[in-house]
Amino acid sequence: MTERNVTIVVDVLGGDFAPAVVLEGIDAALAGDSALTLLITGPSEVVVPFAAARENVRAVATTEFIDMGEHPANAVRAKKDSSIVVGCRLVKEGEAEGFFSAGSTGACMAAATLVMGRIPGVSRPAIATIIPAAERPCILLDVGANADCKPENLLQFGLMGRAYAQVILGVENPSVGLLNIGEEPTKGSILAQEAHALMAAEVPGFAGNVEGRAISSGTVDVIVTDGFTGNVALKLLEGTAKSLLGQIKTAMTSNTLRSIAASVLRKPLMELKERLNPDVYGGAPLLGVRGVCIIGHGSSNSRAIAAGIAVAARAARGGLTGTIAEAIAGPTEAV
Amino acid sequence: MTERNVTIVVDVLGGDFAPAVVLEGIDAALAGDSALTLLITGPSEVVVPFAAARENVRAVATTEFIDMGEHPANAVRAKKDSSIVVGCRLVKEGEAEGFFSAGSTGACMAAATLVMGRIPGVSRPAIATIIPAAERPCILLDVGANADCKPENLLQFGLMGRAYAQVILGVENPSVGLLNIGEEPTKGSILAQEAHALMAAEVPGFAGNVEGRAISSGTVDVIVTDGFTGNVALKLLEGTAKSLLGQIKTAMTSNTLRSIAASVLRKPLMELKERLNPDVYGGAPLLGVRGVCIIGHGSSNSRAIAAGIAVAARAARGGLTGTIAEAIAGPTEAV
Repeated sequence: MTERNVTIVVDVLGGDFAPAVVLEGIDAALAGDSALTLLITGPSEVVVPFAAARENVRAVATTEFIDMGEHPANAVRAKKDSSIVVGCRLVKEGEAEGFFSAGSTGACMAAATLVMGRIPGVSRPAIATIIPAAERPCILLDVGANADCKPENLLQFGLMGRAYAQVILGVENPSVGLLNIGEEPTKGSILAQEAHALMAAEVPGFAGNVEGRAISSGTVDVIVTDGFTGNVALKLLEGTAKSLLGQIKTAMTSNTLRSIAASVLRKPLMELKERLNPDVYGGAPLLGVRGVCIIGHGSSNSRAIAAGIAVAARAARGGLTGTIAEAIAGPTEAV
Repeated sequence: MTERNVTIVVDVLGGDFAPAVVLEGIDAALAGDSALTLLITGPSEVVVPFAAARENVRAVATTEFIDMGEHPANAVRAKKDSSIVVGCRLVKEGEAEGFFSAGSTGACMAAATLVMGRIPGVSRPAIATIIPAAERPCILLDVGANADCKPENLLQFGLMGRAYAQVILGVENPSVGLLNIGEEPTKGSILAQEAHALMAAEVPGFAGNVEGRAISSGTVDVIVTDGFTGNVALKLLEGTAKSLLGQIKTAMTSNTLRSIAASVLRKPLMELKERLNPDVYGGAPLLGVRGVCIIGHGSSNSRAIAAGIAVAARAARGGLTGTIAEAIAGPTEAV
């Protein structure tokens, strides 16, 4: 491996099955990347012995824990020695280039925004996710950080999503679509119409409006929307895939002959399920903060944790933060 | 059949394959309902001979046609002798109880709203659609009539969707969810938070917030949202189901043995596809206008046309307009 050395912080308390699956995920991530160093935040009785037994892991003992149910901003302000806040601080202080947690999305967002700070010019950080669409992977943002958006926010989401596609998907000149309810520029909500005008002027590779079906077909590299619509779309997509695969399984095993036939098809269908599995992309970045911040699903298994850590390392090595800063600096100065 | 006699207008120029498939659909609808009379609007050379050869069909010759690409409100104002405008006028004048068209959604909405008028108290008519969800059919509205909504609009959508569920799905006390990005009442956009408060006070059977996955799982009878989010969700759902079934077919026929196994599974999978096919519900109602107005997909085949006409007949017989008027009158007076 010729990758450069990179240091990432991992919150061992993040996720429904923490710390066990997080620690398994860390081992898997290290096995896949010999130039990776991890700082792990969490209770000393967990992190100290784990780090002592491994070469590329350093323990950073913390004394507090932010639960999924807590008010994010309040918890982040009150619990300065929590695994999440300390993790973000290590990035802020230059001890690491990125932070990964499968803990409370709200707390990670609040900690990253308050502790790392925003990239100059970014008014609202956004959460992006990679959709395993039919034609190609497609980046959708915002998927929940900002329920109410202004046109300028959507413009910045377009620039940040484009930077993420360049760094993570390796697409040189990503196409960017604006999610809307019609393809003509004059269609849709006032927000969408105003955002269309801004994006047409300032987002390189702007492909105009795209409709809901583009999210699963993947006709563009990046799809921009407000955090309300994006979150509804993401959860609907996850729900539909799960429900449909479940119904197919039921239909295919409704008698003995069918079950035998289904067993022949098990492999290709599992491969398809695998391809549609968002775990392979391991976590969603909070774009727009000063440092890499990747947030995993609360239900992440060890493989998803490992993938999330790998995404953080790739984003750091690819210079995600700098790429976003450059993308934002351009159009903002032009305004 | 003990159904009462009902008269519905059908626009024979509506849809991508008009008039041929519309006429086929009309025959299928008549075959399934002996107490149905149809008025058909369109060019005299089409409607007159067709009606002459059938007992329960009357021709209403019109001279104008509104194309899919025209500006809806302008076209409706300019083309007073179009098949759509005349169709709505026949309802307004009491010649028929309902109107069905697979033509331009915008033009049908504009014509129904301008010509039939709104039910007293309704500020914004909404388009509803029935989602063939996993647990049970689920009504989603608005799916595109109103890209920008106020909380009071969402409240009325809840009341109108509930009336539609009672009349069309036969659910006595339908549950109504508000689409949001979290289940707690304080979550989501400002619109969603304010709508939650109104709906909690005034919508019978209000089940609180539901997330995107509820659309495909069907945990409530009615899901309310603004027309932007609803339209994105509907198109995403249609796109995902189509894309996923296509990918499954490809995976299942990737070699000879698999193709043989797949042939055994053809029947149950076709049954599933059938169950998920929105055609069986035939068209989406515009709720809130004075008279039944059902709008079919432009790509409707004859079966979808027949289903749409049947839905219009069922809505008319079930007293949809009166049920909505009563539902709206209640809470509006209480405000």
